[in-house]
Amino acid sequence: MLADKPRVAIVGAGAIGGYYGCLLARAGCDVHFLLRGDYDAVMQRGFTVRRPDESFTLYPVQGYQNPQDIGPCDLVIVALKSTANRHLHKLVAPLVGGHTLVLTLQNGMGNAEALAEFVPAVQILGGLCFVCLNRVEPGVIECYMPGRIFIGEFMGSYRQRTIEVVELFERAGVQAYFSRSLDESLWRKLVWNIPFNGLTIAAGGVATDRIVQSEHFTQLARLLMREVQAAARAHGHYIPDDFLESQIEETRAMDAYKPSSMLDYVAGREVEVESIFGEPLRRGMSKSVVMPRLETLYYLLKGLCPPPAKDGHGKSKHRKKA
Amino acid sequence: MLADKPRVAIVGAGAIGGYYGCLLARAGCDVHFLLRGDYDAVMQRGFTVRRPDESFTLYPVQGYQNPQDIGPCDLVIVALKSTANRHLHKLVAPLVGGHTLVLTLQNGMGNAEALAEFVPAVQILGGLCFVCLNRVEPGVIECYMPGRIFIGEFMGSYRQRTIEVVELFERAGVQAYFSRSLDESLWRKLVWNIPFNGLTIAAGGVATDRIVQSEHFTQLARLLMREVQAAARAHGHYIPDDFLESQIEETRAMDAYKPSSMLDYVAGREVEVESIFGEPLRRGMSKSVVMPRLETLYYLLKGLCPPPAKDGHGKSKHRKKA
Repeated sequence: MLADKPRVAIVGAGAIGGYYGCLLARAGCDVHFLLRGDYDAVMQRGFTVRRPDESFTLYPVQGYQNPQDIGPCDLVIVALKSTANRHLHKLVAPLVGGHTLVLTLQNGMGNAEALAEFVPAVQILGGLCFVCLNRVEPGVIECYMPGRIFIGEFMGSYRQRTIEVVELFERAGVQAYFSRSLDESLWRKLVWNIPFNGLTIAAGGVATDRIVQSEHFTQLARLLMREVQAAARAHGHYIPDDFLESQIEETRAMDAYKPSSMLDYVAGREVEVESIFGEPLRRGMSKSVVMPRLETLYYLLKGLCPPPAKDGHGKSKHRKKA
Repeated sequence: MLADKPRVAIVGAGAIGGYYGCLLARAGCDVHFLLRGDYDAVMQRGFTVRRPDESFTLYPVQGYQNPQDIGPCDLVIVALKSTANRHLHKLVAPLVGGHTLVLTLQNGMGNAEALAEFVPAVQILGGLCFVCLNRVEPGVIECYMPGRIFIGEFMGSYRQRTIEVVELFERAGVQAYFSRSLDESLWRKLVWNIPFNGLTIAAGGVATDRIVQSEHFTQLARLLMREVQAAARAHGHYIPDDFLESQIEETRAMDAYKPSSMLDYVAGREVEVESIFGEPLRRGMSKSVVMPRLETLYYLLKGLCPPPAKDGHGKSKHRKKA
């Protein structure tokens, strides 16, 4: 059972972590933010969330630079970029006790598995955010589409406390759903992320409108979606054709949205190529699904997005926009 | 039989047309250049060819703005961009008599077929230039690798006069060979053009060194080459694996070369997407060869390189580099 006022830690307070952390804090949770580069700005000015319907500021913020200063929580929300997963143990382990639930909201595949290296699998949840958010400056998050969140078990079946986490998000004003299959939700999310995060980079660093306005980019998006659909099928998940087309239609209805991967690419930051593209490709191939279009996109992105310098700060020094 | 001093017309006096036209003129041919944008510059200053071993200037130049002013020739060399093939009849027909040979040196597939719409097939030859040339300014052509040219019949088998055309190029100092199969030579050339013209654009407008320095781009180049190899095989041409690898090795040995397609892309000019990528894709698919990586590259390039404005000058007005 989650406490009435659960202790929540947010690891990785960028767009996703900051947004949900603020909503949960406003709904009465005891939220502790683990901050890095934005620490000073957030401590001084708090977090501001701007949404189409309303804007609000959370101030003061319970911000920290070390997870040891937070200690064990009821719920740990991991919203780090997956490219920083090498730091996961150091950042998350001090927050985890025997009763703690750890919810990863990270992009792509392989994140719950990375947590499972040091957190018992039964304590791990995964969440898929179908949402359009950008952190436009330190402590300022713009939300263009509040969207939905799907939360499911990493291992095993339905447990009551997972429903409680879903309800916690609902109380915070989020359209939240329990996902009976986290794996299926992950594949469904990739139906969008693979073509749109990928092609906005491959097209030179453009917003989603450039993709859906071009019949050729849209056709390529469709072909990529079909490969993801086939890989999901081989993993036991049926994603109907209607869903694919609905993703294109929803993207047409959106404004010019800039996926986080594209913003990372343009800014010369490390791009989540492995979790969004590499791991799904390997999982498809492990079931003998041919994904040559994804493979092409993957190699292209690997070539376009070189790894970061070895200073561990995730910012490439070798990177030069062509 | 070609005359001792054959009348030669060059249609499309860019890098390829200007280069071979100058070499043939220097070797004693009576060469007439059909010029468009570069007319004034070439008439004033002639053509200058810069090669690693030597440089020379052809002056005065027999330049024209209308093909009617040239009239029928012994040999017409077509080196127009294939994107301008809609003007082929207007530009070439006035140069063709019953004895005229028409040699297309254009990139990709479908060019001889476009000529065959108004020139008898037996009068058409095709040539493949394995050469590194750039027109660096009006009338100035830089040659980084003199390379080789393969000339073959469009239709039917070996004819003596085709050998004479090969010998004409040899006398002009070109390593020229008779190709027993123009179609095979076309596929072999595409083994290089498809990955390198394509990926230098897809990588944002870079030179070939960026491709061969990246293990991921190089791997993608290799995968694309294998699809071209498979399509060639289905059309009856055996291209050995060694040839594929030799193309990568030769590219490593080159300096940072900028393929013409990439230069067109960066300058906002129309790119030869259909002849280099679209037509080979369709020919592979017509033999039931799956070419999903080429298909991916094709759609990506179609999206990146929008068609020109309808003013007929081949320069896109809608184009904006992202």
